[in-house]
Amino acid sequence: MTVKVKVLPLDKDLKLKIGANLRAALIESGVPLDSPCGGQGTCLKCKVQLSGISQKLTALEQEKLSAEELQDGWRLACQVTVEEPGEVRLPEMEVSRAKASFSLLGEEIALCPNVRRRHFELGKPTINDQRADWNRLAEYLETSDTGPVSAELSLLQEISGPLREWNFAGEAVLVGNAVAALEPPGSAKDMLGVALDIGTTTLAAGLVDLDTGKIVAIDAELNPQIAFGADVISRIMYTQDGSEKREKLQQELVRGLNRLLLRICRSAGKERERIFEATVVGNTTMLHSLLGLDTLHIALAPYVGVLNRAMYVPPGELGLQIHPRGRIHILSSIASFVGADTVAVILAARLHQTQVPKLAIDIGTNGEVMLATRDGVFTASTAAGPAFEGGRIKYGMRAVKGAISSFQAIPAVDYTVIGRSPARGICGSGLIDLVAELFRAGVLNSKGRMLLPSEVSASLPADLAGRVRVQDEGREFVIARDGEKEVALTQQDVRELQLAKGAIRAGIELLMKEAGVGVDDVQEVLLAGVFGNYINREKAVMLGLVPPFPLERIHFIGNGAMDGALRALINLEERRRADEIVAEVRHIELSGRPDFEDTFLRCLELGNERAAQ
Amino acid sequence: MTVKVKVLPLDKDLKLKIGANLRAALIESGVPLDSPCGGQGTCLKCKVQLSGISQKLTALEQEKLSAEELQDGWRLACQVTVEEPGEVRLPEMEVSRAKASFSLLGEEIALCPNVRRRHFELGKPTINDQRADWNRLAEYLETSDTGPVSAELSLLQEISGPLREWNFAGEAVLVGNAVAALEPPGSAKDMLGVALDIGTTTLAAGLVDLDTGKIVAIDAELNPQIAFGADVISRIMYTQDGSEKREKLQQELVRGLNRLLLRICRSAGKERERIFEATVVGNTTMLHSLLGLDTLHIALAPYVGVLNRAMYVPPGELGLQIHPRGRIHILSSIASFVGADTVAVILAARLHQTQVPKLAIDIGTNGEVMLATRDGVFTASTAAGPAFEGGRIKYGMRAVKGAISSFQAIPAVDYTVIGRSPARGICGSGLIDLVAELFRAGVLNSKGRMLLPSEVSASLPADLAGRVRVQDEGREFVIARDGEKEVALTQQDVRELQLAKGAIRAGIELLMKEAGVGVDDVQEVLLAGVFGNYINREKAVMLGLVPPFPLERIHFIGNGAMDGALRALINLEERRRADEIVAEVRHIELSGRPDFEDTFLRCLELGNERAAQ
Repeated sequence: MTVKVKVLPLDKDLKLKIGANLRAALIESGVPLDSPCGGQGTCLKCKVQLSGISQKLTALEQEKLSAEELQDGWRLACQVTVEEPGEVRLPEMEVSRAKASFSLLGEEIALCPNVRRRHFELGKPTINDQRADWNRLAEYLETSDTGPVSAELSLLQEISGPLREWNFAGEAVLVGNAVAALEPPGSAKDMLGVALDIGTTTLAAGLVDLDTGKIVAIDAELNPQIAFGADVISRIMYTQDGSEKREKLQQELVRGLNRLLLRICRSAGKERERIFEATVVGNTTMLHSLLGLDTLHIALAPYVGVLNRAMYVPPGELGLQIHPRGRIHILSSIASFVGADTVAVILAARLHQTQVPKLAIDIGTNGEVMLATRDGVFTASTAAGPAFEGGRIKYGMRAVKGAISSFQAIPAVDYTVIGRSPARGICGSGLIDLVAELFRAGVLNSKGRMLLPSEVSASLPADLAGRVRVQDEGREFVIARDGEKEVALTQQDVRELQLAKGAIRAGIELLMKEAGVGVDDVQEVLLAGVFGNYINREKAVMLGLVPPFPLERIHFIGNGAMDGALRALINLEERRRADEIVAEVRHIELSGRPDFEDTFLRCLELGNERAAQ
Repeated sequence: MTVKVKVLPLDKDLKLKIGANLRAALIESGVPLDSPCGGQGTCLKCKVQLSGISQKLTALEQEKLSAEELQDGWRLACQVTVEEPGEVRLPEMEVSRAKASFSLLGEEIALCPNVRRRHFELGKPTINDQRADWNRLAEYLETSDTGPVSAELSLLQEISGPLREWNFAGEAVLVGNAVAALEPPGSAKDMLGVALDIGTTTLAAGLVDLDTGKIVAIDAELNPQIAFGADVISRIMYTQDGSEKREKLQQELVRGLNRLLLRICRSAGKERERIFEATVVGNTTMLHSLLGLDTLHIALAPYVGVLNRAMYVPPGELGLQIHPRGRIHILSSIASFVGADTVAVILAARLHQTQVPKLAIDIGTNGEVMLATRDGVFTASTAAGPAFEGGRIKYGMRAVKGAISSFQAIPAVDYTVIGRSPARGICGSGLIDLVAELFRAGVLNSKGRMLLPSEVSASLPADLAGRVRVQDEGREFVIARDGEKEVALTQQDVRELQLAKGAIRAGIELLMKEAGVGVDDVQEVLLAGVFGNYINREKAVMLGLVPPFPLERIHFIGNGAMDGALRALINLEERRRADEIVAEVRHIELSGRPDFEDTFLRCLELGNERAAQ
């Protein structure tokens, strides 16, 4: 007997068995719940908000959850037995992770990975068949559609005992045409793959069972390189002093990835050593850093890196703790500021196959803009800067507990804070809302200048006007007050956001001009990036971050880069397609265009002509 | 002005410039003289025997050479200036080395190696051409006839500085499709390759300039594994205890190879790091040992090793000190006792292309027998044992100073000793002569029994009869006496030689039977192996080591295995041919044949029916 359970905010309907453990059932259905303790009830990471589903509290929940949490319906998924229909709401952090898998799962991908299991039963050696062990096995595995198979010395050094023990039958795990592991006949040990998205701020991993193609878990972790600079340019500068610093950053990154792999595998009850392939996307600088390549010339005109091609690397060369005979596939990049992550977004969003104009924007420190038409995909990178991620903003912070994530000014000041806690700062989506709403209300003019009560029209509600004040550093708008820790938006913050918004908007304008595409021609606008999901579309248009597109054409596609990396992991055809995309894409270097500066200056202004109509 | 100089015993005529340094001129002409000091006159290794050429002794020669040596015409080639025509005789050790190169040089091999130098001049990066450094270089190098080129991370990690320093022009050294090194424009640093023949007893190396295809030097060194057993079976048994012992033998072998490479490079004024490729042949057990593979099942029926296929290995995996991004190409083997060395002999002797039946024998601990016909090549391995190399022979020794290397009984006992020194023992060629001559004289009967004076016919010269005596262990024939250190041939020695000779002869008989080839059909008989060169053909037939072939059909081809390894190094087509040979060869496992035992027992008898007629 099953009951219907809705998963929020994913808006996904599941049928779960009565009597099933909720944590196990969610993970089984592809909802990636963080649960490092494996359901022991000790890590408290699988907290979810229920309505219905189960009425019985376990003693452990009563002990571990606060009265307030219990009141609000918070439960530990690992302690819940499914009893009746209902709704389960994931904590905000899980949402962003889950998005990745769900936008992918929206379209089934045929399972055709680079890692395959092959059963073998060899004729035993006799005096009339003296083929050497490896010759015997290789000849068996070499069918008409595979080329010659290969093996590393470390495998050959240990095959002769086991082959005899197993009577010359068993299971071979192949990565490409290389035999990576041999196992006893009937062995069904895990055959895993992992998709990695290496962002400047966040490392994301998607663990996949390559026997089934199912996503086992998705997880993320801060990029430990953050300690060496928040953005790619500061990290490039850090490594300028010599190759030891380059190695240092590489080691930090690999350590972070290994930690992430350890956690994602533990939470899924898997072993890192069973990961036979990793597909890796990320921005060009991060991929260079992973490979220990010199990044200096990425930062200097004409902005030329060492390697934008796809590359296979043995895990041992990087120190990545997957199966030692597994492989790391780095996807190809387009340019120094349009990396394999953008290629992955194009791949995931099928931009390369579109028949109608579509625009996609990956919002982050570098805002990558993609415009797809029947004639191909155009890309550009824009130096948005760190404002959307809280950088150079006085009270800026990432989208974690305490961050103001949405804001409205009219009819009265109202805002939401992540984690139901007192406000501590402002994250990217909150910043967009703030500037858009204050512009709409008249507290900011179209040049971005913050107006004093004396300068604004009398129609401005007193509550709003009273929040603008002048401090030593300049004007600021106080958001949180009345006993709360104060959080404010400064005039300088508005300038920073204008620079970010202006850069992205200019990129969009110039690509549309290059492709000869007008605002009305664009049939779909896709916002990618974990952060993208939390943007209020209406306010993004109001702010002028994007041209005045009809709101119904704007969609969120979550972490499209992770989607693309997963596609390349699960299906070799998709992997090949990624290379085709890179070969065909038309990358426009904005700084090389004579019309860049004018456009950029124009785009600094707040508002959107048509939206303002 | 040039003069004619004959090089003995190679019987090669050279034209040397008057005034030239003899050592330099010989090396230049491809005669590989050992001279580790590079011609400084300190190592005394380039000793040669002159007649003519130069009459002037240098002070150094007068100091370093003994009166007796000077009397006999010995000189130091590095001190000799060519003045007039004459003859130069190489010391015996050089001869065996030189043979390898000379039999190869008999036929010109087109230069088409796997290692190539490519000049490049890349367009410089601009804002309109932002291709990454490696993309730029790779696209330049990828012509229609190469596939995609690749590079290891270690190269990519260090290209961006030099490319800019050199203005994006330079020289690339490619090994296969991998860029192994980048050098400044116009750089003409050495591009070397080395052919290695790994024998149970001897490691041989041939150093080749891959820009010209010229053999720069040939050298040899004892296999340090000898300390762990003289033959392959005893080394296999040694490693049975565990993988540490396997690693130990591997390390010893690699250490020996590195030492050999160091010496051969020093003597030629070259650097090991400029060797970009090594082709490796050897018997199957030695190749397994080099790769650290388990050899146990080579020694156990049905005698199946781990790997007989060709394989590329990065030098770092073995610890071989050539260019770290160079490659080691292990040639494929045929069976557990017919290794890549035999493949190399077939390749070098063009047996796979013959239109008439030809027989080749590589005489060593394992005597490999090859019979080529229009329909293909048949191979067999015979367990000759170590007798030919002095093993299990009371006064047995290798062919070094003090070894009796030839012998005659009629009309009077006479023998030669290597190095003009008192006899210390008997080497392989001496052993064959001894048994053959004593059989011809009647001291041995056809069963190999040594006859006492009372048992032999009265016509036996008294000198001969008087040398047979009875000791505690049995009968023996005293060779050296009269004040010299005594050296004798025992009854047991004769038995050992019979086993060795019987094994090889049985292999020949059975292959000829299998191929339907009679004695008269065989147009050419090739004796390979360094040792093979010193065998007296007449005595080999007299002994019955080979069927009664006309002597003029028997030829020596020196170290054919080294020849083949050099071919595979210098020409990729030859390398491919080696794989074809392995795929097509018909290997006959003698121990699996019902007629093996009878044939072997019959072949133990001394003599040759037709030769005796």
